[in-house]
Amino acid sequence: MDEPVDVVCPPDPAGAHEQTMRLAIEAAHRGPRGANPLVGAVLVSPEGEVLAVGHHRGAGHLHAERDALRQVAAGGDHGAVDLHGATLYCTLEPCRHHGRQPPCTEAILEAGVGRVVYGADDPTPDASGGAAVLRAAGVEVVSGVLSGPALAVNNRWARARREGRPFVTVHLAQSLDGRIAAADGTSQWITSSASRLHTHRIRRRIDAILVGSNTAEVDDPRLTARLPDGTLADRQPLRCVMGRRPLAERARLRQGRPEGDGWVQLRTHDPLEALQRLGAIEHDGHPVRHVLVEGGSRVLAAFFAQDLVDEIFAYQAPLILGAGASSVGDIGVTTLAQARRYTRDQAEGGAVRILDDDVCVHLQPAEGALTWPEHSTDPLSIGPRGASAPTHHASDAAADLAGAGEDRSCTDPCSPES
Amino acid sequence: MDEPVDVVCPPDPAGAHEQTMRLAIEAAHRGPRGANPLVGAVLVSPEGEVLAVGHHRGAGHLHAERDALRQVAAGGDHGAVDLHGATLYCTLEPCRHHGRQPPCTEAILEAGVGRVVYGADDPTPDASGGAAVLRAAGVEVVSGVLSGPALAVNNRWARARREGRPFVTVHLAQSLDGRIAAADGTSQWITSSASRLHTHRIRRRIDAILVGSNTAEVDDPRLTARLPDGTLADRQPLRCVMGRRPLAERARLRQGRPEGDGWVQLRTHDPLEALQRLGAIEHDGHPVRHVLVEGGSRVLAAFFAQDLVDEIFAYQAPLILGAGASSVGDIGVTTLAQARRYTRDQAEGGAVRILDDDVCVHLQPAEGALTWPEHSTDPLSIGPRGASAPTHHASDAAADLAGAGEDRSCTDPCSPES
Repeated sequence: MDEPVDVVCPPDPAGAHEQTMRLAIEAAHRGPRGANPLVGAVLVSPEGEVLAVGHHRGAGHLHAERDALRQVAAGGDHGAVDLHGATLYCTLEPCRHHGRQPPCTEAILEAGVGRVVYGADDPTPDASGGAAVLRAAGVEVVSGVLSGPALAVNNRWARARREGRPFVTVHLAQSLDGRIAAADGTSQWITSSASRLHTHRIRRRIDAILVGSNTAEVDDPRLTARLPDGTLADRQPLRCVMGRRPLAERARLRQGRPEGDGWVQLRTHDPLEALQRLGAIEHDGHPVRHVLVEGGSRVLAAFFAQDLVDEIFAYQAPLILGAGASSVGDIGVTTLAQARRYTRDQAEGGAVRILDDDVCVHLQPAEGALTWPEHSTDPLSIGPRGASAPTHHASDAAADLAGAGEDRSCTDPCSPES
Repeated sequence: MDEPVDVVCPPDPAGAHEQTMRLAIEAAHRGPRGANPLVGAVLVSPEGEVLAVGHHRGAGHLHAERDALRQVAAGGDHGAVDLHGATLYCTLEPCRHHGRQPPCTEAILEAGVGRVVYGADDPTPDASGGAAVLRAAGVEVVSGVLSGPALAVNNRWARARREGRPFVTVHLAQSLDGRIAAADGTSQWITSSASRLHTHRIRRRIDAILVGSNTAEVDDPRLTARLPDGTLADRQPLRCVMGRRPLAERARLRQGRPEGDGWVQLRTHDPLEALQRLGAIEHDGHPVRHVLVEGGSRVLAAFFAQDLVDEIFAYQAPLILGAGASSVGDIGVTTLAQARRYTRDQAEGGAVRILDDDVCVHLQPAEGALTWPEHSTDPLSIGPRGASAPTHHASDAAADLAGAGEDRSCTDPCSPES
């Protein structure tokens, strides 16, 4: 084994490190956002051949490093695979702590990987320090390769951690004209069955689900996570009502159970306070780290106004209502320049989903986000927001996704008048 | 040449006619909707080889039959291609009239095509009768192959004709929460530069563009069609203001010109009346047959309320406003069951476009629409709405289009409670 070395981003003239790190960042985006950061890992042979590409599938699942190593082990007798000359690329510094998963450093040392190249240092005190552990054990470690993009992938996750609050996913289920209910309050169902199934997939992996007390009264929802066959999933989110209005005795959320037993009321109108309180609650043996906010428009407005929305799934049903509540209430924006801006999020495998009649767009806050080039001619070209490669969608690549490249690189002919 | 025959949908045990007609219907969808119907054509050799696939690209362009025949002619010396044994499949009965293009029957006879198989009879009195002309000239003609789907392709176009009004395309340019302006009225620009370029592509091929008198006053738009370099296109739509409020003297729409000279005011609040009046106006040497309605919310509501919207391009920008005008005003719908329903439209090459930060969804009224299976495992399987094959989007087919197939075929677990 090589002597311990302490290399920080050495010269990489051929760009091999960066090229492989891009693959790892791309792999990271296959996982879902939430309690844990997105992480990708690529295992490369001494000859430069990609042996495995791994990613983290969310809290409770294998970390990306183990996912990649497991694939190689699964390919034959683990002992027969000599990884001494291999390099493991990870977007994030391998963890050294026992969380819901054992430390990645252990797996790397057990597998005998000779070199680790990673992007960003782990920003959390409890998980960081993995690089030092590996180096002490004789592994060559290169850090800081594409550290900017590798960090930007988890921009909002890191911010939620810094703010001491759970990660917030928002669910918008609306008509084409942005309504979440008709004038008489009817809202079941604006979106398609496939959209609701998609929502239940999210509900199955979050820690808590939150609605406003008005929505709890008007819609009287159960807020359970169900499987496609309609039965309850093994794991259920903590169900939360935010606001001061008391929950009716007959409410389905109670189902005869006292507060604290699977549901809580957060008697505040301040979303950050609500989140911090949730973060202090243990549910299913873990602190609440990921909250899905489902509505209504006033609660959503409170989260948007304070920039507490880390991720949006916007389900748009192809119908026009022309009246009824808008999906998001007043957020204090009076002029267009103040609008809250988002950008498509490639995490979880893609930003635009066709769900029966609906189109679902997956978004993240634009500020500080890493944008991923879609259908770029150079699939390895990535960069921070504003620096991404021109995108092009060939209509033959996806029958439902139309070409729009033709005029894309031209100057804007439409300013200043329409 | 064969003797004239009069065959209506003869037995087609091998399904060859239907299979090729599906190709022709698919080709028809490559063209844009508007003044003319969508038409596709496939030229097949005596051995069953596809020689050419043609489609109509909109008013002023070649008809689909000529588009297919031209491709064969372009492949070599026209005289050298013997099409006597060939079959031309068309979704619509070949026309026999001189419009902006010469009759297709002439082109078919000149090319010496031995057999024509078509889907739907031409529903318009002036264009129909082509089959009889061809038969009289000795061409074998088979009609009625997949006539239902072939007719449904142009369901709304035919309806507009029956109602004696132009075809109506609606343009919605809105925020994620369905607003077309912020609280202070600012709306330039909610959507991306690429979305506006796409709108200008539509403006270049329509006959007239219509806004309400309130929008004309507040936004003071030019409503011109511009090229990507910002210069005015050769062909400009007739610019129309609907409503009773007089257009300001300083309005850009006037640009020093009197009414009638490139712009008109339709002093009515009844959209059907406005359309019928427009249909009686000659613009650029032709009657107005295609109108783009761009807003505002009251004018759009009037068109939606009377089911006069034949096609929608909904541009959704990833920003939240929380206040300001909704894209569509009151349409008289008070409960969800009354909502106006639409369905994705594959015409013009696809239903979902990525336009920089925006997502644009192309829609048509759901009732009577032909839906096209997207990413079906059987690309030739089509049918009327409700009978289309299950769709599946592989995430590797388009990085921006996420897989959603997993739960698609399951029963709805979400009814009756959320």
